[in-house]
Amino acid sequence: MDFQKVIAVATRRGIFQPAFEAYGGLAGFMDYGPVGVRMRRRILEVWRKHYVIDAGCLELDGALIGPESLFQASGHLGEFDDALVDCKSCGKQFRADHLVKSGEEMSREELSNAITGTACPGCGEELSEMSSFNLMFSTGVGAGNGSPGYLRPETAQSIFLAFPWLLRQNRGKLPMAGAQIGRSFRNEISPRQGPLRMREFTQMEVEHFFLPSDEPKLSDELRNITINLLTANGNETNSTVGEAFDSGIIGSSLVACHLARAQHFLVTIGVPSGKLRFRQHGSNEMAHYSSDCWDGEINTSLGWIETIGVAHRGDYDLSAHGKASSKEFRVAIPGTEKEMETWVPDIGKLGKKFKGDAKIILEAIKDLELKPNISVDVNGKSIDLTTEYMSLKTERRSEMVYPNVVEPSFGLDRILYCLLESSWKVDSDREWISLPQSTSPYDLLVAPLMTKDGLDEKAHEILKAAVNVGVDAYYDEAGSIGRRYARADEIGIFFSMTIDHQTLEDGTVTLRERDSKNQSRVSIEGAINKVRR
Amino acid sequence: MDFQKVIAVATRRGIFQPAFEAYGGLAGFMDYGPVGVRMRRRILEVWRKHYVIDAGCLELDGALIGPESLFQASGHLGEFDDALVDCKSCGKQFRADHLVKSGEEMSREELSNAITGTACPGCGEELSEMSSFNLMFSTGVGAGNGSPGYLRPETAQSIFLAFPWLLRQNRGKLPMAGAQIGRSFRNEISPRQGPLRMREFTQMEVEHFFLPSDEPKLSDELRNITINLLTANGNETNSTVGEAFDSGIIGSSLVACHLARAQHFLVTIGVPSGKLRFRQHGSNEMAHYSSDCWDGEINTSLGWIETIGVAHRGDYDLSAHGKASSKEFRVAIPGTEKEMETWVPDIGKLGKKFKGDAKIILEAIKDLELKPNISVDVNGKSIDLTTEYMSLKTERRSEMVYPNVVEPSFGLDRILYCLLESSWKVDSDREWISLPQSTSPYDLLVAPLMTKDGLDEKAHEILKAAVNVGVDAYYDEAGSIGRRYARADEIGIFFSMTIDHQTLEDGTVTLRERDSKNQSRVSIEGAINKVRR
Repeated sequence: MDFQKVIAVATRRGIFQPAFEAYGGLAGFMDYGPVGVRMRRRILEVWRKHYVIDAGCLELDGALIGPESLFQASGHLGEFDDALVDCKSCGKQFRADHLVKSGEEMSREELSNAITGTACPGCGEELSEMSSFNLMFSTGVGAGNGSPGYLRPETAQSIFLAFPWLLRQNRGKLPMAGAQIGRSFRNEISPRQGPLRMREFTQMEVEHFFLPSDEPKLSDELRNITINLLTANGNETNSTVGEAFDSGIIGSSLVACHLARAQHFLVTIGVPSGKLRFRQHGSNEMAHYSSDCWDGEINTSLGWIETIGVAHRGDYDLSAHGKASSKEFRVAIPGTEKEMETWVPDIGKLGKKFKGDAKIILEAIKDLELKPNISVDVNGKSIDLTTEYMSLKTERRSEMVYPNVVEPSFGLDRILYCLLESSWKVDSDREWISLPQSTSPYDLLVAPLMTKDGLDEKAHEILKAAVNVGVDAYYDEAGSIGRRYARADEIGIFFSMTIDHQTLEDGTVTLRERDSKNQSRVSIEGAINKVRR
Repeated sequence: MDFQKVIAVATRRGIFQPAFEAYGGLAGFMDYGPVGVRMRRRILEVWRKHYVIDAGCLELDGALIGPESLFQASGHLGEFDDALVDCKSCGKQFRADHLVKSGEEMSREELSNAITGTACPGCGEELSEMSSFNLMFSTGVGAGNGSPGYLRPETAQSIFLAFPWLLRQNRGKLPMAGAQIGRSFRNEISPRQGPLRMREFTQMEVEHFFLPSDEPKLSDELRNITINLLTANGNETNSTVGEAFDSGIIGSSLVACHLARAQHFLVTIGVPSGKLRFRQHGSNEMAHYSSDCWDGEINTSLGWIETIGVAHRGDYDLSAHGKASSKEFRVAIPGTEKEMETWVPDIGKLGKKFKGDAKIILEAIKDLELKPNISVDVNGKSIDLTTEYMSLKTERRSEMVYPNVVEPSFGLDRILYCLLESSWKVDSDREWISLPQSTSPYDLLVAPLMTKDGLDEKAHEILKAAVNVGVDAYYDEAGSIGRRYARADEIGIFFSMTIDHQTLEDGTVTLRERDSKNQSRVSIEGAINKVRR
């Protein structure tokens, strides 16, 4: 199925539609409808099973709007931008890297040279100089002009900032992983391609923290997963993750773990493994924080689409927040504990001098390494703490280090699009979505043959029994059975059950399997048990 | 438990914390942690069971950022504001209605009079004139200054705008309800009280659409639900919903339905019915769109807190979007079909004159009632369609009407806060959260008595078996069993299971029930079956 067909079917069947069409549309925003919300929930359930329940990640749900200082520290204010040119004549705006071949792989300097002399694709007139356009949506928090805030461009920063809190929840133990499902926002210059380039999108991200000296190993289970790789120097390989790691194609054992997990997850939700590859970033393409980065790409009618990323971010994020903020983002290195002289606050002298403010000062320094002449903010006033207010004490302390992190990051909207395209089947007499039961929007269609003789009451009774044991069931009594099967197939309902006169006599129903169209006559209870996930 | 204690326990136990504290904090934003995310998910699951699975609402997940034209039409640009004053001396900003007693119940004119002469609560100096501050967060969509966009102040507008699409999914049938769970944003002037006044919050909203002439009736099941009401004129009643509707206290049958459903939902998730009342809005307080409105309030240490609203919004929203946009938001009134002369486009003449643009014109008018001299936007150019391009045709058509809507709206953050406060129990030797199993963060603690003699392996085996049948289980092997029970109690884990040497011999475990502390010796299988929801 091609792009236009996916969009048409998705709109007709209540999966998704472009948002705000009644007001002329707003590119890069979508609405998900009754069937789409279900498919998204099912994909998220499988993801959560893999990462939260089986792998033990700690969940977080952070705020979407954040303060300027956060994005200053994370690097997004400075470096998260696209190169923009606009036409001096018609005013249209373009991403510079979309105007020349292979532009996305060029450095800014190469790009600037490459577009020199390029004419406006719209009107053919001259283009402006290249400028930088920050991709974060900005807003003001509070009355008046407010304080500057930004919509987060990735869920990741919420997890980094919550690292000290999550670590306490994990009782200080590493390795530890945080997981988050939520919206992120990127103010793309001129997005097209519906769900493939959105300004507002849903991410599922894991940040897997570990001591630099103690990187998690590749388990035997994950070692044996087969994977297609395309390396930065253009080599394609198909091997087990273990072989790719042993031969050095994958440089980090935890990156290898997460490539294997991602492969396993995507195949579980229904992506054909033949349409899936992991492509290593070249050095030009790598994000500012990353030392090794792979994109999980799915082959579609529009080419290879990036749907996930696995990146080794080193200690970039935690050290950035540790240095810019007032919190401790480091951890103790086990085995390095020794006697050290450390400064501790002199509570008596602080209280005498600062009275009620002493409590605020103690609170402000409690997570800091205390040093003479450190300055503390008290109700907007900066106070210098001299050695008068502290004393040297010998304590057993450890060396501290910023943990490293590997991040697998998933784009839900793109994954759903790719699934719809790859699972669409056509034969001589029908079209249907062929997803695994776990990601089908419903487990079961419940259909009375007709709405008389008590068949509809019986169908409702069965519906209720099925729902009570957790079956996602859809009731439909309108039109011929053939028509109802066709509608169910088009949204990918996994089983269909027909209730007829024989049901009233012997308690059996017809159970039809979506992909094979096989029908069998089974007891109501047997049918419900078969349909239960 | 009081407010400060809830916040302290919530932060310590990974339920929620104020966001961005490392950067000095940003009032009105929270992070939810590992336990909080689970509690939220559990509450949402019950809500979805009530409204989507049992009541058959159609789910939607709409974009959070919307265009200016949408909020112009919805009334939010014009009227969704707070009265603001700021201090001429210290510059602090205040909500005017918070500076005088009963300010929230006053009209703007009353409020302006009432605050005259009031001094700044901060420094005692003179305050400015009262001004209006719009509560929507604004942003720019696209490069340069972009086009103006706003973060939605309620999930409701997404559902109204999607009404024509949802109605097609429902094959044109009314009544029909749309349901949405998602983030909303209000740029509060100076929010305090953590999860009770947030700038970014999660709503669960239902929009229940119906023909004005065919309002859904109150069913016998809903009729018999008991409810506390506080009417606009100050009368408190405790009766069944049926009695309150029959006696005219509740004016609309569908409002009555949704008061009953909301009461049932809140009691199911664990709100004590004695702490719950529905308070009718007075005319000053009512939103611009509403004709009858009730707040579901929960009694807390801070007084009665509004957690949900049930409002009859009439046809305000659909007619606003129908008039301001290019889409048809009306439905045919059954039984009014008759022969009518209608204008239809003359496709031949359109094609001859407008060539390729004819298709755009046809697309633009397909949902409109065609009239002579209607103007159509074609690639930014306005074209007047005269009678030359259309002809009169006699068709069977119906009268059209805007559906009415009743909206129950739930604030997840406030509900969770109120649940934490009302379910907190203290006795002589412990403190615990006493929620129903359906909203407890975990069903089961799995705890090996010690981590030797194979007890931990056995515990992991049981953990896996429990998880495989859908039990939300938490594994803990650290510290004494008493300490582990205490930690489990403090986050409200419903059951605890201890694995000891006898488990290895006879396959039995100790199962402890959180609230009663009753312990019993049962088989592993029996324990898992008891714990399954």
